[in-house]
Amino acid sequence: MTTCTTQTVPQGVRGLALPLVGVGDVSKRILLGRKLRSSQLGETLLPKRIALPVFASDALSSVAYAPDEIFIMLSLAGASAYVWSWKIGIAVALVMAAVVASYRQVVRAYPSGGGDYEVATVNLGSKAGTTVASALLADYVLTVAVSVSSGAQYAAGAIDALDGHEALFATAMVLFLMALNLRGIRESGSYFAIPTYLFMVSILGMCAYGFAQLAIGDLPQVESAVLTITPDPSYDDSMTSFALMFLLARAFSSGCAALTGVEAISNGVPAFKRPKSKNAATTLLLLGAIAITMMLSVTILAKQMGLRFVDPSDLDRLKQNGQGVPANYDQHPVIAQIARAVFHDFSPGFYLVVTVTGILLVLAANTAFNGFPVLGSILAKDGYAPRALASRGDRLAYSNGIVFLAVMAIILIQVFNAEPTRLIQLYVVGVFVSFNLSQLGMIRHWTRHLRTEQDPAERRRMFRSRVINSIGLTFTGVVLVIVLITKFLAGAWITILAMIVFFMIMRGIRTHYDQVAVELAADEEDKVMPTRVHAIVLVSKLHKPTLRALAFAKATRPNVLEGVYVSTDGPATNRLLEEWDERNLGVPLKVLHSPYRELIKPIVDYTLEIKKANPRGVVAVYIPEYVVGRWWEQLLHNQTALRLKGRLLFAPGVMVTSVPYQLRSSQIAREREERELTRVRPGDLRRGQVSEQATPPRRQVDR
Amino acid sequence: MTTCTTQTVPQGVRGLALPLVGVGDVSKRILLGRKLRSSQLGETLLPKRIALPVFASDALSSVAYAPDEIFIMLSLAGASAYVWSWKIGIAVALVMAAVVASYRQVVRAYPSGGGDYEVATVNLGSKAGTTVASALLADYVLTVAVSVSSGAQYAAGAIDALDGHEALFATAMVLFLMALNLRGIRESGSYFAIPTYLFMVSILGMCAYGFAQLAIGDLPQVESAVLTITPDPSYDDSMTSFALMFLLARAFSSGCAALTGVEAISNGVPAFKRPKSKNAATTLLLLGAIAITMMLSVTILAKQMGLRFVDPSDLDRLKQNGQGVPANYDQHPVIAQIARAVFHDFSPGFYLVVTVTGILLVLAANTAFNGFPVLGSILAKDGYAPRALASRGDRLAYSNGIVFLAVMAIILIQVFNAEPTRLIQLYVVGVFVSFNLSQLGMIRHWTRHLRTEQDPAERRRMFRSRVINSIGLTFTGVVLVIVLITKFLAGAWITILAMIVFFMIMRGIRTHYDQVAVELAADEEDKVMPTRVHAIVLVSKLHKPTLRALAFAKATRPNVLEGVYVSTDGPATNRLLEEWDERNLGVPLKVLHSPYRELIKPIVDYTLEIKKANPRGVVAVYIPEYVVGRWWEQLLHNQTALRLKGRLLFAPGVMVTSVPYQLRSSQIAREREERELTRVRPGDLRRGQVSEQATPPRRQVDR
Repeated sequence: MTTCTTQTVPQGVRGLALPLVGVGDVSKRILLGRKLRSSQLGETLLPKRIALPVFASDALSSVAYAPDEIFIMLSLAGASAYVWSWKIGIAVALVMAAVVASYRQVVRAYPSGGGDYEVATVNLGSKAGTTVASALLADYVLTVAVSVSSGAQYAAGAIDALDGHEALFATAMVLFLMALNLRGIRESGSYFAIPTYLFMVSILGMCAYGFAQLAIGDLPQVESAVLTITPDPSYDDSMTSFALMFLLARAFSSGCAALTGVEAISNGVPAFKRPKSKNAATTLLLLGAIAITMMLSVTILAKQMGLRFVDPSDLDRLKQNGQGVPANYDQHPVIAQIARAVFHDFSPGFYLVVTVTGILLVLAANTAFNGFPVLGSILAKDGYAPRALASRGDRLAYSNGIVFLAVMAIILIQVFNAEPTRLIQLYVVGVFVSFNLSQLGMIRHWTRHLRTEQDPAERRRMFRSRVINSIGLTFTGVVLVIVLITKFLAGAWITILAMIVFFMIMRGIRTHYDQVAVELAADEEDKVMPTRVHAIVLVSKLHKPTLRALAFAKATRPNVLEGVYVSTDGPATNRLLEEWDERNLGVPLKVLHSPYRELIKPIVDYTLEIKKANPRGVVAVYIPEYVVGRWWEQLLHNQTALRLKGRLLFAPGVMVTSVPYQLRSSQIAREREERELTRVRPGDLRRGQVSEQATPPRRQVDR
Repeated sequence: MTTCTTQTVPQGVRGLALPLVGVGDVSKRILLGRKLRSSQLGETLLPKRIALPVFASDALSSVAYAPDEIFIMLSLAGASAYVWSWKIGIAVALVMAAVVASYRQVVRAYPSGGGDYEVATVNLGSKAGTTVASALLADYVLTVAVSVSSGAQYAAGAIDALDGHEALFATAMVLFLMALNLRGIRESGSYFAIPTYLFMVSILGMCAYGFAQLAIGDLPQVESAVLTITPDPSYDDSMTSFALMFLLARAFSSGCAALTGVEAISNGVPAFKRPKSKNAATTLLLLGAIAITMMLSVTILAKQMGLRFVDPSDLDRLKQNGQGVPANYDQHPVIAQIARAVFHDFSPGFYLVVTVTGILLVLAANTAFNGFPVLGSILAKDGYAPRALASRGDRLAYSNGIVFLAVMAIILIQVFNAEPTRLIQLYVVGVFVSFNLSQLGMIRHWTRHLRTEQDPAERRRMFRSRVINSIGLTFTGVVLVIVLITKFLAGAWITILAMIVFFMIMRGIRTHYDQVAVELAADEEDKVMPTRVHAIVLVSKLHKPTLRALAFAKATRPNVLEGVYVSTDGPATNRLLEEWDERNLGVPLKVLHSPYRELIKPIVDYTLEIKKANPRGVVAVYIPEYVVGRWWEQLLHNQTALRLKGRLLFAPGVMVTSVPYQLRSSQIAREREERELTRVRPGDLRRGQVSEQATPPRRQVDR
């Protein structure tokens, strides 16, 4: 008879004392409010006004470096080429609009948060899905590297002491973010909301103020306006129109860095308040509008204010009165230059803009640390990543991911000396690979649904959606081709190589899991029950753990039960034998002699011998273990038990039972484990699994 | 009824296929002969002619740097002070003779190989024993640092390219030794015998040739004889006799570095052929005679050949024709200078001496890597070191010890720039602390035995022994005081600090083990048997491992048996429930819902709930595990099982059973484990646990 009972896990921890609270915990509670158990969380979803800053920081922060890249590329042909800047800005804005429109379709059709990966997998097959996943993985690394490097440029613009140490500062920032995320910082709406809104207000305010000055004919020049740019020798006056086209294409593809991060919302739909898809789509529209406004404003203002901006590794092309600029000339980012000029008589305005931009860049980098585990768990569910990533709260897996992300980003920062201009060359290709596959997938999606849909109104809607996605695909396809042509040799090959490696690892993992599944598939003979159980209890001393193990083993009423002792020392053995007799335990003790103090091999050999004598029986090995709490205590105990268990796993027909005996200090470790299990992990917020933070005043702000 | 059966472990591995042999293994077998299982070893003990080189390399190698230190110290008062050199040499030789005589008593009285540690513990108590152990630990580190640094000086003397990179070279050598010992190089008598005998022959031959040239009045001068030494300002002509005394004391205490390593034989008595003690005592005598002869010969010859030798960090005190020596002047070690002069018309002689000396120094460093685990296992037996060290073949513990030794030695080498002169300041104090405590212990030993001994002949022998040890104690006590006075500020404080740290760690470990033993001590109520067994089998899928775990669990006939499944996903749960019904397993399945994909917490909570409902019963948790072989496969599987097992250990009244299912690839890991278990470990030779090497021709040489 098979009975199936189901039961929901109770929310509280029954039968366990509440963890003792340390001083650190107390101060954290005072600062952050009561820590919520993750199982109590998840009821509170994000309203649009919080979701926007949480998911938009990455996309918006690119305004801090994308316009700079347009000007750098154009500067190759001299400052006269800057006439193209606003046209390129508009081209980027058009692509952005098309992409936003496309993703509004995605969030409606796939509200589960799988995003591009899900769209590609469902509509184009698992290989396309894995390709998207590889692109996203590469992208997370680059988001960290580019954002932090750009942040370091802003910091150096505001703090002279950092000048020339940008790579060091960026590395330190990555390590800081890594440490925060390893400790398990919670992503909270409020820490995104305040800086992101401040950033929007200050950038848009600065631009508005600038345009007002422009309108009254009083627009100041930026600091670099006094300079002239010597064109690169290959782009002098005799430039062919083909060369011009290529230059504009390069500038455009660099400017497309502004589009990175737009896809974030499609991975975060489950975190939105209901109606989730509609709210996500609206938020996307808002994000697009704000990002386009910012980028165009900054680009146009910079041109109007006489900006002269070249590749920082090529500063000698900048001339002042026909002379080269001084060796210690410091080329500040575009936004910093505009802010300094616009707020020339109000320096707090300048510092606000620069500071807020820097903070937003760091937040953008942090979103990668939060997005990474989410992607990992989705991949793990499908067997493309270690399974441990799929279960929430596998700290080791999370930590490895976070360290991997940080190390890769630091390598990039060091190799490219924290210069955003050089890192951007690697950046855009991954995003556009995933844009393209997702648009293609969406077109397939609509075509498939159109085959069965009868309702004319619904069919019209689907037709319209398919047109939107087709336009999106056209734009992103053209951009991808341009990016590949203009950037492949400049660095995109590194990203493509990394994507291939990620792709192959993921396919390899999946192949392995598939093979194991085949090997493990059950057949009928697997139900055969062993005929007898021969239990042995390992004895090292006659203490409480051993007695408990003997009692537990007896309780299972095996066919044979004996204690097994490995003798390495005559007198100790005799003492044990005497004590064994005195205690009258009713269990025979077998002594294995091991003249060279080996413990593992005698036991393994004896076990195999029993098994050989009874091939259809099973050997149950009971290991008494005592459980201690402090890390150094763990070094001092149970090493042999651990190794023995590892070794016995290879013996067929043997089962290994740990009978734990909890020492007083084990309480410490239990509390640590408890804290670990209830901790909020990076990425929880964007999966809709974490409520907003809990102190009452902020809660009011957040709702 | 209590039956006690005993059984010796069979020598072969029954029921296990022999490990497959890899290409590396084949080539190693060709090179080294058939690998011996450690359980087959140990019958062959070392004859004196092999034991001498094995245990003497450390003591003999000090002739490569001890005379240099005497000349360096004396040079502070100018070359005229070199008249004292042979007198100091004789003083060192006298101490050496007293120490050798004392240790001959030790090996007779304590033939078990515990050496100084055992003597001090038995006669003076555990604190003295731990002090000796701390001193020995510090000494092992310094043996590596000093020997390798000195070897680097010789290498630089023979190979110009190494000049100025001694620290780098020494570090590389330590890393090389570390790698060899981590891989499990076997210490073999032959690889000690050949270089050690070559060293004796070449040094003694060189000295004899030199003395012959001296006899016929044809002794050449060494290369530095043309130089003059400017005395250190504080030791000029107006030097007081107190200052002279202090100078001679410093020179003497530096020269006492020659005594390090003499105690090695007392730790190696079990490795000697029978009669062990007598053979060990004879070998000690031989060692003493050879070491004294070498040291005196080198010191006298160097003086006769006009050596000028100063502290290498003070080279500007050397003058040539009143001018300072050139900046690139290269001060070669004393033995190298003598060899170059003596063999001025036979350069192979020079290269032989220098090469053999370098090799012997490296061998001496390697003895520390072999002695360390031996000391560790003795300490572990007494509870002063992690217990895992006591069982032979705990690779992790061995590896940690080896890495620790190497890292500490490298730190010393880097800090002191691989200059033996500066490292010697740290070296001698540890040795003499252990000499003193062991002599004091021996005096107590004889006094105690004299209390009960009646036989007059035996009593006379004991009186004589006590006199010898008293003389030994007097000498070593005086030396220790001199060493402390002259070297404390120069570096000995570092060693003393390290000894205090080691001491406190060892006492702390012992205290911890004692406390645990008290907490674990059995009383009568521990025999109470649980009233019922509630078994749960964790189910993730219905595959072979799960079916096996269910069958095994059923075989133990628990009072209650149920499958437990954590549901994170509705459709998958329904599929499993259907399959469960179809298979008609006769076991109910309990489904725990976990909306946030947590696996561990629901199971732990459910277990605690069962336990709470039946406080006098026991919960048996069966975890199906599949065993894979490759390291990356292990990353992909069983992470959750591991963490769950770790977590359940903290739950009282719960036992955790692993039911392994071996996948095909697990064979790889089993073979690796097999190789691990049969591997010979560093230190086996000096515990008398390894036979001599096995190819027939060499075997004949060794016996």
